[in-house]
Amino acid sequence: MADPAGTHTVGLQPLGLRVEIAAGETLMDAARTAGVGLTSVCGARGTCGRCRVVVTAGPTSPEVDADRRAFSQLELDAGHRLACRTVALGDVTVALPRASLLGTQRLQVEPGTGGDHLAPVPAVRALPAPMEPPSLTDQRGDLDRLAAALRTAHGIHAVTAAPAVIGQLAGTARRHDWDIVALVRGRALVGVLPPGGRALGLAVDLGTTKVAGYLIDLATGDELAAAGIMNPQIPYGEDVVSRLAHAARHADGADVLARAIRSGLDDLVGELVGELVAEAGVAREQIAEAVVVANTAMHHLLLGLPTAQLSLSPFVAATSGAVEVPASDLGLTLAPGALTHTPPCVGGFVGADAVAMMLGCDLDTAPGVMIAVDIGTNTEIALRDPSRPGLVSTSCASGPAFEGAHIRDGMRAAAGAVERVRITPDGVQLTVIGGVPPVGICGSGIIDAIAELRRVGALNGRGRFDRSAPGVREGRDGPEYLLTPAAQTGTGQDIVVTQADVNEIQLAKGAVQAAITALLDATGTAPEDVDDVVIAGAFGTFLNLDSALDLGLLPRLPRARYRQVGNAAGTGARSILRSLTERARARRIAAATGYLELTMLPGFQARFARAMALPDPARPAPPARPATTPGA
Amino acid sequence: MADPAGTHTVGLQPLGLRVEIAAGETLMDAARTAGVGLTSVCGARGTCGRCRVVVTAGPTSPEVDADRRAFSQLELDAGHRLACRTVALGDVTVALPRASLLGTQRLQVEPGTGGDHLAPVPAVRALPAPMEPPSLTDQRGDLDRLAAALRTAHGIHAVTAAPAVIGQLAGTARRHDWDIVALVRGRALVGVLPPGGRALGLAVDLGTTKVAGYLIDLATGDELAAAGIMNPQIPYGEDVVSRLAHAARHADGADVLARAIRSGLDDLVGELVGELVAEAGVAREQIAEAVVVANTAMHHLLLGLPTAQLSLSPFVAATSGAVEVPASDLGLTLAPGALTHTPPCVGGFVGADAVAMMLGCDLDTAPGVMIAVDIGTNTEIALRDPSRPGLVSTSCASGPAFEGAHIRDGMRAAAGAVERVRITPDGVQLTVIGGVPPVGICGSGIIDAIAELRRVGALNGRGRFDRSAPGVREGRDGPEYLLTPAAQTGTGQDIVVTQADVNEIQLAKGAVQAAITALLDATGTAPEDVDDVVIAGAFGTFLNLDSALDLGLLPRLPRARYRQVGNAAGTGARSILRSLTERARARRIAAATGYLELTMLPGFQARFARAMALPDPARPAPPARPATTPGA
Repeated sequence: MADPAGTHTVGLQPLGLRVEIAAGETLMDAARTAGVGLTSVCGARGTCGRCRVVVTAGPTSPEVDADRRAFSQLELDAGHRLACRTVALGDVTVALPRASLLGTQRLQVEPGTGGDHLAPVPAVRALPAPMEPPSLTDQRGDLDRLAAALRTAHGIHAVTAAPAVIGQLAGTARRHDWDIVALVRGRALVGVLPPGGRALGLAVDLGTTKVAGYLIDLATGDELAAAGIMNPQIPYGEDVVSRLAHAARHADGADVLARAIRSGLDDLVGELVGELVAEAGVAREQIAEAVVVANTAMHHLLLGLPTAQLSLSPFVAATSGAVEVPASDLGLTLAPGALTHTPPCVGGFVGADAVAMMLGCDLDTAPGVMIAVDIGTNTEIALRDPSRPGLVSTSCASGPAFEGAHIRDGMRAAAGAVERVRITPDGVQLTVIGGVPPVGICGSGIIDAIAELRRVGALNGRGRFDRSAPGVREGRDGPEYLLTPAAQTGTGQDIVVTQADVNEIQLAKGAVQAAITALLDATGTAPEDVDDVVIAGAFGTFLNLDSALDLGLLPRLPRARYRQVGNAAGTGARSILRSLTERARARRIAAATGYLELTMLPGFQARFARAMALPDPARPAPPARPATTPGA
Repeated sequence: MADPAGTHTVGLQPLGLRVEIAAGETLMDAARTAGVGLTSVCGARGTCGRCRVVVTAGPTSPEVDADRRAFSQLELDAGHRLACRTVALGDVTVALPRASLLGTQRLQVEPGTGGDHLAPVPAVRALPAPMEPPSLTDQRGDLDRLAAALRTAHGIHAVTAAPAVIGQLAGTARRHDWDIVALVRGRALVGVLPPGGRALGLAVDLGTTKVAGYLIDLATGDELAAAGIMNPQIPYGEDVVSRLAHAARHADGADVLARAIRSGLDDLVGELVGELVAEAGVAREQIAEAVVVANTAMHHLLLGLPTAQLSLSPFVAATSGAVEVPASDLGLTLAPGALTHTPPCVGGFVGADAVAMMLGCDLDTAPGVMIAVDIGTNTEIALRDPSRPGLVSTSCASGPAFEGAHIRDGMRAAAGAVERVRITPDGVQLTVIGGVPPVGICGSGIIDAIAELRRVGALNGRGRFDRSAPGVREGRDGPEYLLTPAAQTGTGQDIVVTQADVNEIQLAKGAVQAAITALLDATGTAPEDVDDVVIAGAFGTFLNLDSALDLGLLPRLPRARYRQVGNAAGTGARSILRSLTERARARRIAAATGYLELTMLPGFQARFARAMALPDPARPAPPARPATTPGA
């Protein structure tokens, strides 16, 4: 937070990002440095009034005319400014209204080639189709008339359309003097727009906990908006297993869960469109195609597929293939004939989100041996060795502890969350998201804390507190470590790490660690032969890699081999939306990926038990034992 | 009703048919003579107990053991008998329970080659597909597993399925030990059945007034059941124009009409399936495809297409093409992936029912000049001259008078309806459906009555009663003719023909007559050059042709050129269901058929006014004036 060398720190909320900028740089520069896309049409010249931010703390340059044109006095008083016109004069914290965010943290969510640089090959095209008006000597039907226009102008034959689309055509054509834009998908008419209308697409990464949505211009591939919601199914269970149990135990359980997520997705569409209402012509009916990637359970619940067999050995999906259903069947109000495409999955535990993640980080084309790990409530791991055919995947239930759940003072990675912990002889040093007094600890914070507690000897290899270590005290439920006393927190309560917290993290990290080492073993891959480890997902992105290596959560490899890439599944989803070529690639990845059922491996339980240990940081754990038989 | 030559008359209710049979013949023989298919599995040997009828009047042979096995004593006392074991001993009347009716009047509903003799080329096949059960070493999804079975056993690749079908697969496969029958349409899985399941199809002729449904075995083409309902939209308007007005005038008008017909169709399916519940395995989920033919307004209301433009010049359809929608979108509970196919129409006033009618009576392949006329609430007329390309169609609003509506004592053609009238010097001779005392007069009866009244001079050429003619009396609203005095009717009320009735029929017959003659004129066809006139529809089937010719309703041609073929649209619908080849033929017919807009023809109003006249039966009307320019 200091200013040691003519630089200032700018905190960007609610993203929890902090960047260093040089003195004299604007808040727009800060956002760009952080990889955050801020809406701007004028090229940061202060004329479009789009890059609106709110300065919540710290000194900035005074308001200018551009600000006064963009905001009311009330807004100016509350700190509203145009980012491109505002210079940080010290460390500042800035809130980014959703409407100003062009996308999510761009640098972090675009691993590999991403989808941004692909030539768009969209499923739906917006085609101008001026129609002949009807008369008593030309009584062809509306659709027949449009079909003739599409045949003449675009060489498209035998157009089909659902009744709702034909209904939209009848109204739009008459309102716009028979001059319309047709949204065409293959031979199917999926919607009709007034002249000049463009086709948009919706990409969704539907997670057990978080749901991220992106609006894409299908013709250019440009990302127009991004937004996120919490999965509205959370009240019915925090993880996949408890959701499936809810569906199984209640007669209408699956229906309730389906309705919850469908209405959540429709709300998300509303948010995305709402961000763009100022732009001419952006409306739900422009969204002509949706791609949703999800784990297999979320996918089945969304589509209304049966889920009973997902909870029972041998854990098979109702379908592993890509499914395309009318978006309206899922309660989404988009173009009336828009389809929702869900890419194929590998199996009951490695879903289309994992396939999208593999695609998003280019696992299938990596030149060396590569592992991709998406750590979430469920963790998926995939490995590719280019010297062998295909890919191998596995998964484990890591639970929601990495999201801050089931941790005494746990919280999600939002403002006030402790995300870095350093224990020095002088005391505990914390980094708090948003630079505010701490109110809790998020996943990366608790990993850091436990690694530090192990390093200083306050925890032993079995994860037990040494009651005599400094900072360790007797709490309500056994020994605990005081991170921040009540006087320094935002809540007025101590923030502690309890014995139960440690055990919870041991279970979660043990599961991931055992899965990774088992996959390496089963495929006969020595850890040191892995050239590239991609860590995907929000938790993985903010994870302190040193701590993760210290705890054995990740294999001890040179730091340069690791890449923390953010939401690779979301990147994959957008690529699959942008390009039918990428859609075919997702199909090939799913077909080429084998699934390793961990419970089938001899000795897996023992491996899991060993993996719960906290290694001695002075003596790194030995590399995993190479298997004698090569895996799939 | 007498027995002049060792024969008996058997009345078949509720069909309103009467047939002569030889002494000693059974009621089953009577049904066969009438062309009525009675359910029978044993070949009329008295063992299957299916051909159940109820003798409501007249003497029959006493009950036999087979009857006692089939019925309770209560039923026997009420006249229930097996038709194949019961001999008529005099004139009898028999009620045929719907469950015993294999189809409708077979001889009358199967004009042309019909669909019965076609090799079935069904859209959906029932394919046995024994699947590999899943295991921990084979975790493919259910659908992937079935796709593999279909690939291996039937060479079908890349099967797709809607979520509801995948859900059905998950349950059925597990209940039947992974041995199932797949209902496959192209590459789409539309349903799953237990082993041995067969694919059925539903054909519907959806009329403004009546709705007829047929259940077909798609593999054999056999008709399994037939049933009819009144169109549940009737309360919202008796004809097309008033239905469209209802849809236009009320905010939810179109929705209400759509819901009414959708729920009616689903009830009709229930009736059809209910007739067959005794047969093993007949259930809604076997119905894998539906074909619905309707006029354009009924079609648009069913599918939820906009109808506003159908009431406004230039009267264009929202689409003239074939539409395929999930049956579930129309509220039909069939196989979960079943589609409803609606064939193409010609235009706003010549719908898919007319196309089906043309196909059903082979208009497109007739060797000579042929006219097909489907008289209903709306009347469609089509003409083909093999020496010219294509077909020409037109239509006119003939109103519901031919169905007995808007006629003082009018009624539908059901038991108690006067259907034939003969005026002799000795008095009025009536034929009454069901051989019961008359309660009203149906369409064919009123045509007969007016032709007779004109013949005997009680009506003049302008349709005015001669108040001095015998039987003509002063009624409440002007002159009227007494058909049956109250003492002889079933209602205890006089049955009369009023001046308003005559005017109503003049309007209706004038519309049809003017449309036919205008079509002949516009195409340069002399009436005497027409080789074949097909009269389709229920009214046309029971119409007394002599009276129709006397009134000028139909062109005066030799009787041998006329064929009264019954529900040709229903026949066409069944053909289109039975065979994709016929479906393609319907598409060709619709594409090849031009529409003649009568209101565009110069002098049409005058022609219509002239056609309302009642010709002098002694001086037949001159043939229509040949046009100087050939039509389309």
